Amino acid sequence: MVGQNDPMLAALRRIRVVLSRPSHPGNIGAAARAMRTMGLGDLRLVAPRRFPDPEATALAAGGAEVLAAARVSGSLEEAIAGCVLAAGFSARARELSHPLTTLRDAAPRILAAAGEGPVALVFGNETFGLTNEELGRCRMLVSIPANPDYSSLNLAAAVQIACYELATASAAFALRAEPERDAATAGDVESLVTHWEAAMRESGYLDPERPGRLMQRLRRLLARAALERSEVKFLRGMLAAFRERMRR
Amino acid sequence: MVGQNDPMLAALRRIRVVLSRPSHPGNIGAAARAMRTMGLGDLRLVAPRRFPDPEATALAAGGAEVLAAARVSGSLEEAIAGCVLAAGFSARARELSHPLTTLRDAAPRILAAAGEGPVALVFGNETFGLTNEELGRCRMLVSIPANPDYSSLNLAAAVQIACYELATASAAFALRAEPERDAATAGDVESLVTHWEAAMRESGYLDPERPGRLMQRLRRLLARAALERSEVKFLRGMLAAFRERMRR
Repeated sequence: MVGQNDPMLAALRRIRVVLSRPSHPGNIGAAARAMRTMGLGDLRLVAPRRFPDPEATALAAGGAEVLAAARVSGSLEEAIAGCVLAAGFSARARELSHPLTTLRDAAPRILAAAGEGPVALVFGNETFGLTNEELGRCRMLVSIPANPDYSSLNLAAAVQIACYELATASAAFALRAEPERDAATAGDVESLVTHWEAAMRESGYLDPERPGRLMQRLRRLLARAALERSEVKFLRGMLAAFRERMRR
Repeated sequence: MVGQNDPMLAALRRIRVVLSRPSHPGNIGAAARAMRTMGLGDLRLVAPRRFPDPEATALAAGGAEVLAAARVSGSLEEAIAGCVLAAGFSARARELSHPLTTLRDAAPRILAAAGEGPVALVFGNETFGLTNEELGRCRMLVSIPANPDYSSLNLAAAVQIACYELATASAAFALRAEPERDAATAGDVESLVTHWEAAMRESGYLDPERPGRLMQRLRRLLARAALERSEVKFLRGMLAAFRERMRR
């Protein structure tokens, strides 16, 4: 059922996870496992309190190779050397100078950068997060939206979510021949747009003399919706019913 | 920076996480923490090997209340009683009778169901997953796309991803005052859906006697589109023009 998308797998492999000053070796191991489940493999540790450590090894499970290949650096600067982009993960929004982007919005930008060269996802210490100096070295600040009453994600859980979001945005492991998702082609969407435009014209909502940005807005919305073929059919059927009724 | 979307918070609270026969108490605690970070709170345990347990308590951290409120059941049937939907999580696709949906595609459907009543997310044992009998009790099968070379997510990591995906799809904790996106509220979308339904009824496209899954399909599509406020306004204006023209 699972297909592989090779250029995207290559992009995922260029994404490096940097854990800065992690306190708990279990989190290092669990982060290695999380990375491996989503196709990432480049783990860097900045001044870990304990590493290597049997607890890290135990929690790495099938991520043992990722853990074994992890490199230890003395500074964040060294760990992100050569990266075309460093994205710092932070829950705290107040004191920051850069704008904070949600992980979902950041994922396509991170993947695009990974098409150019290595990219670093930078995670801070379990208790203190990233220092302002560390954040200053990151060009993008990413937040994982969470419950404001308790937003303290476990470090490895944050790594897991980030890797999942990137793998999903890349469609590297998309389900193949999925029965329920049958993406509409560009041609399907184009004919829907034509149909939709005609209906808006016939209703008087779209004035061909002064169209404004209506069609642009519609196209943008439909692109974001990533329609399925059956949804195009549903919307076309609905527009046909509207148009027929309007003509009576 | 973080806003709250109250109807969606209520929907998240109606989503129950069911762990069937978990072996490791640490995973129970970590799952409770994962739920809490994403606004979920209803944890059910079917025949846990060890519970309560100090390891579960230690790993729950800020999810201690969720853990304390967890209920233990003797069977899956009991744990999902009263749910309008039970979604089983499975990585194994081969032997299944139901179609497998990715978590991303399933999220809007799960949230829509949670608008109606309690919904269960069912996770199997760490080693064996869900049995075929357990899967048979689930109306929807959900998979988290992962690396086919090693797709074995830690149990609490899978719970964390599921809760993250649902919280994100709900926009319950969306960043506020984002400059480029002025997200529509659940109320905006709800009034759009009502308007849309009326137009489809008036055109004869939607037969109130035999509605089928039209409205569900529309809701799913709109959830995926993550509409902006200005887009809701545009679509409402368009539907109003259609309806006026149809009435002539």
